[in-house]
Amino acid sequence: MNEFQLIARLRASLPSHAGVIAGAGDDCAVLDCGRPGRALLFKTDAVVEGIHFLPSAKPESIGHKALGRCLSDVAAMAGRPLAALVTLALPKNFDPQFIRKIYAGMNRLARRHGVAIVGGETTSNPERLLISVALLGEVARDKCVLRCGARAGDALFVTGELGGSLAGKHLQFQPRLAEGRWLAEHFSIHAMIDLSDGLAGDVRHLMERGKVGAELLAGAIPISRAARRRAGSGRSPKPPLLAALTDGEDYELLFAAARRDAAPLADAWRKEFPKVRLSCIGKITAAPGLKLRDEEGVRALQSHGYVHFS
Amino acid sequence: MNEFQLIARLRASLPSHAGVIAGAGDDCAVLDCGRPGRALLFKTDAVVEGIHFLPSAKPESIGHKALGRCLSDVAAMAGRPLAALVTLALPKNFDPQFIRKIYAGMNRLARRHGVAIVGGETTSNPERLLISVALLGEVARDKCVLRCGARAGDALFVTGELGGSLAGKHLQFQPRLAEGRWLAEHFSIHAMIDLSDGLAGDVRHLMERGKVGAELLAGAIPISRAARRRAGSGRSPKPPLLAALTDGEDYELLFAAARRDAAPLADAWRKEFPKVRLSCIGKITAAPGLKLRDEEGVRALQSHGYVHFS
Repeated sequence: MNEFQLIARLRASLPSHAGVIAGAGDDCAVLDCGRPGRALLFKTDAVVEGIHFLPSAKPESIGHKALGRCLSDVAAMAGRPLAALVTLALPKNFDPQFIRKIYAGMNRLARRHGVAIVGGETTSNPERLLISVALLGEVARDKCVLRCGARAGDALFVTGELGGSLAGKHLQFQPRLAEGRWLAEHFSIHAMIDLSDGLAGDVRHLMERGKVGAELLAGAIPISRAARRRAGSGRSPKPPLLAALTDGEDYELLFAAARRDAAPLADAWRKEFPKVRLSCIGKITAAPGLKLRDEEGVRALQSHGYVHFS
Repeated sequence: MNEFQLIARLRASLPSHAGVIAGAGDDCAVLDCGRPGRALLFKTDAVVEGIHFLPSAKPESIGHKALGRCLSDVAAMAGRPLAALVTLALPKNFDPQFIRKIYAGMNRLARRHGVAIVGGETTSNPERLLISVALLGEVARDKCVLRCGARAGDALFVTGELGGSLAGKHLQFQPRLAEGRWLAEHFSIHAMIDLSDGLAGDVRHLMERGKVGAELLAGAIPISRAARRRAGSGRSPKPPLLAALTDGEDYELLFAAARRDAAPLADAWRKEFPKVRLSCIGKITAAPGLKLRDEEGVRALQSHGYVHFS
């Protein structure tokens, strides 16, 4: 049984109640907070030494990544982050200076986005550092964007550039919080997700349990310089397009927008976020399945999204 | 630098904002949710294999403990838990059946208290299992009980019996949620905390940075049968009273009530919670410091509360 199978089984029997608007399975859980028109967003995410960062990483960057991953999930719901709790599971003989620098990185990112860090705890994990962040956010009920909701004909957009994140971006990415809220405020965004496992894997979450499919345009997928450089230098066996599709850890937003909004959205984006690339990379299709269109035609695209515990 | 010193330094520079009613340093963080008269409670807690439970522990009990610790903190604020997120950091070669039983224990406790489990994540922690639970709760603003607020003359009460928790209770305790809310609803509870590090250590958190002190009555401290049995059998070098003061992991409520409420509170408690022992164990004093009164007189009581990373 791999991670995804285990999660699917566990998810089937979780306790719920009427206050749960969206439970397990989206970027964040969405909860009714008893305040008309508003909802709470609730998310946790952990980074583990040797898995999500190397012991040689800059401690400020480790803190940035630990909080940034949760912020990216709030961004994908078009939400605003409010407060975080930090669990530090510390190895034997930890260096207090290293921990303080982790906090410095986390605090800086929190301040940039108006997030309070309201506590947490330290505990022991003798062999390696583990940082788990819990984040609370909020969103207008009618602006909250889930993963489900994409419709045939919707345009698929992605922010930023994809692939090669391990060359550095995975420790330095900027969560697209302002972008996510702006999108939901001004356009009909039917579905949105943050890219963590890789485009080829994550786009399937927008396909609503097979009720719709998606077609990606190979030539439109924004490939990062890092992915091209790694492929060119022989450091990665993946050609750049495959890297952009499957490397993961991009922390960019992928969203499905109403077709009529596609052109005005792209125009308005350039004025609002001139430094952040936005690419229309394909469309949602009535036919289920994931397809890739290139100069040779249209082919089924296998999922090679990163899977823990394969 | 030990854990407490590190936390104190980190806590001094955490980002905050106007929505934070109480940040790091209480049982839960308290947040303004924009709903008049209500506040959110926010808490995380982790249990680690080999530290908070042995690999031989029943998986259902591990799940019970992981969620129960957070619930106990919500109880200590007189709050109601709403929703939890569960982070499972799984060792290599984990047994999916074991994980499902952990969830079974967690789900059962969640259902008992009306808590939805709204997701979380699995990740890898190769050497040992770690479970981090994030919990969201709510409370009436004017009923929320903090750790600070105890006044000279207040009566000190403790629920249940203390000491010897490692004999079994630490995996089976029942968080005192109904009790905590009932107390705040009916009486003037000035300060409350859940006992996790041991009475002698935790009572200091009610002493409000030394502005008040506390005097405990040795003969009134409720000592568990497990603590007596362990002392009698030679399995613990601690005499039973010392075990009750310092073993920790009791997950009982310690609270300071207005003196005028002490007798009516004790009477009403027996009717409301006939199966849960309640003991008046001393008082808050104007003189700072912690004292223990027994047949030989009054002595300063050293803190031997459990400290991680000593």
